[in-house]
Amino acid sequence: MNSDISPTQFVNQILSQAQPPTRPAKIGQTGKGRAPVNIALSKYWGKRAVALNLPTNSSLSISLPGLGTETTIEITEGSSDHVTLNNQILEISHPFAQRLSQYLNYFRNPNQAFKVTTFNTVPTGAGLASSASGYAALVLALDDCFQWQLPKQQLSLLARLGSGSASRSLYPGFAVWHKGVQEDGLDSFAEPLPQTWPELCIGLIKVDIAEKKVGSTQGMQNTVETCELYSAWPKKAEQDLAIIQQSIEDKNFTRLGETAENNALSMHATMIATWPPILYWQPGSVQAMQQVWQLREDGLSVYFTMDAGPNLKLLFLEKEEAKIIQTFGNIQIIKPFKQD
Amino acid sequence: MNSDISPTQFVNQILSQAQPPTRPAKIGQTGKGRAPVNIALSKYWGKRAVALNLPTNSSLSISLPGLGTETTIEITEGSSDHVTLNNQILEISHPFAQRLSQYLNYFRNPNQAFKVTTFNTVPTGAGLASSASGYAALVLALDDCFQWQLPKQQLSLLARLGSGSASRSLYPGFAVWHKGVQEDGLDSFAEPLPQTWPELCIGLIKVDIAEKKVGSTQGMQNTVETCELYSAWPKKAEQDLAIIQQSIEDKNFTRLGETAENNALSMHATMIATWPPILYWQPGSVQAMQQVWQLREDGLSVYFTMDAGPNLKLLFLEKEEAKIIQTFGNIQIIKPFKQD
Repeated sequence: MNSDISPTQFVNQILSQAQPPTRPAKIGQTGKGRAPVNIALSKYWGKRAVALNLPTNSSLSISLPGLGTETTIEITEGSSDHVTLNNQILEISHPFAQRLSQYLNYFRNPNQAFKVTTFNTVPTGAGLASSASGYAALVLALDDCFQWQLPKQQLSLLARLGSGSASRSLYPGFAVWHKGVQEDGLDSFAEPLPQTWPELCIGLIKVDIAEKKVGSTQGMQNTVETCELYSAWPKKAEQDLAIIQQSIEDKNFTRLGETAENNALSMHATMIATWPPILYWQPGSVQAMQQVWQLREDGLSVYFTMDAGPNLKLLFLEKEEAKIIQTFGNIQIIKPFKQD
Repeated sequence: MNSDISPTQFVNQILSQAQPPTRPAKIGQTGKGRAPVNIALSKYWGKRAVALNLPTNSSLSISLPGLGTETTIEITEGSSDHVTLNNQILEISHPFAQRLSQYLNYFRNPNQAFKVTTFNTVPTGAGLASSASGYAALVLALDDCFQWQLPKQQLSLLARLGSGSASRSLYPGFAVWHKGVQEDGLDSFAEPLPQTWPELCIGLIKVDIAEKKVGSTQGMQNTVETCELYSAWPKKAEQDLAIIQQSIEDKNFTRLGETAENNALSMHATMIATWPPILYWQPGSVQAMQQVWQLREDGLSVYFTMDAGPNLKLLFLEKEEAKIIQTFGNIQIIKPFKQD
């Protein structure tokens, strides 16, 4: 399905609900935004409408405080944007800058460009969801710059257009991105869940921080088009989301961990069964998985999830922290509800 | 579905078509059998009836001359079998000996046991299908010992009862194991394909020859029961088989290679999406896959398949042999239609 609504119409529809501007968007005007990365416990894999970034299935994530993106934008004169990423000025032909500029086209006034200064505290393109925090932070910076004063839900819609998973990075803690059913895409936004889980820990195991060869947009399109096993994915994804949401309500960690790990592995399974095959794993990914399974055999309650990259994200409760550190020396541990 | 026919009834039905014995099965009588291992290009994964070893889908294989099993049996007095594997006498409690003895129960006369001497030229349990050549060789030895003079198709049925993929090891070259539709399992046998392909090479890359943790019988049962993506497998498997069979007729190597690799990866995908997860891969498996994909990017026409184990089996044509050896020093190359 491809919507008859263009991305520009979609954006204008949302901006029509913004505060009427108290001042025109002037050269020199600035805005700031900051957003965390998020890790999906129930994954997003597959688009039902590419132009509007509408997903085949809903997803559920947890945001990681302390890891994310901070972005400043400034309205400048002229027609070409100026993008700095982690203190490095990017050529306008750089894929990162190109994608950003294309997105900014929805928001720019005639004869205005943007100076964008962005800092990621996660490596770019390594399956640590830097585009999620990136587009969420950018949308917050735009909201600040243009004084839209849009509610989070509307900002989530705009962030989604930049990068699907960015819709979930508007919130701390758990968030659910509803796939939505409307053709106009206006019901496909993320909302926060009210629950907190102070004992919950996320452990980042960095197997490889190199840029991935196949970006997730391309990867999921190839999967949808060529993977026969994918037909069973959308239903499974919805079921897993419901189980994980219930596990969060019940504080049932085993159920959450089992479902999240199986959900991630099932998503990777659809990639592996794609042609040409998509394998984001490295030898070190397999080794880390085997270590997790060995720990479970030894009685430790630890699970993992993986995104479109080679790195593992462990899920465990605080009481297991010492043993986890013992096994994975090089692990970075985040407590989503104990940090900010 | 589980059949109402017991394995004993199934065996007796087949043996009723054997030559009437010209002499009784006497102590000291011997038989000999020899069979190759086979590698499925379109995989068998999932049983529709466990007791009779009836598969969910048909499969297509190629036998590897020079690699396989040679088995001698002798009828002995008493009630306990005597099993020697690769010159090593096995305890009767050894899983290999137990499975063998249980299978021999279908064929033994009262107060008779078997002395089984078997040599594998492949490591046991390492995803190199030693049970396939093993049960095929055993059935041939039984046929020789009891002078059944059964046609290959009937022997294929008997071998299938011992190990599904053994049904295909009765033949050199390409073989198709028809899944069959009958409840009595008498139409689920393998047949040879008439085509040969002298330029076709199989390259064995041994990543690990350790026994696997999860046997294929257990593995496929867990997949059928818990993997949501498996629902799409049986149809895909039949489609792939048809494409591969056509590719063999057309001598279309690219189509054969692509379909075989995608079929193998899709089977592994169903395992990976099983709970608890089944991952037969080792870090070295991923490394070898990446090497194959790199060779393809460099323009070489090489593909791989994998069974329920960590090892890769490369598919390529003879003209690429030198380059393949250059990349994989430790490779064992088999030319199925140029050796015996």
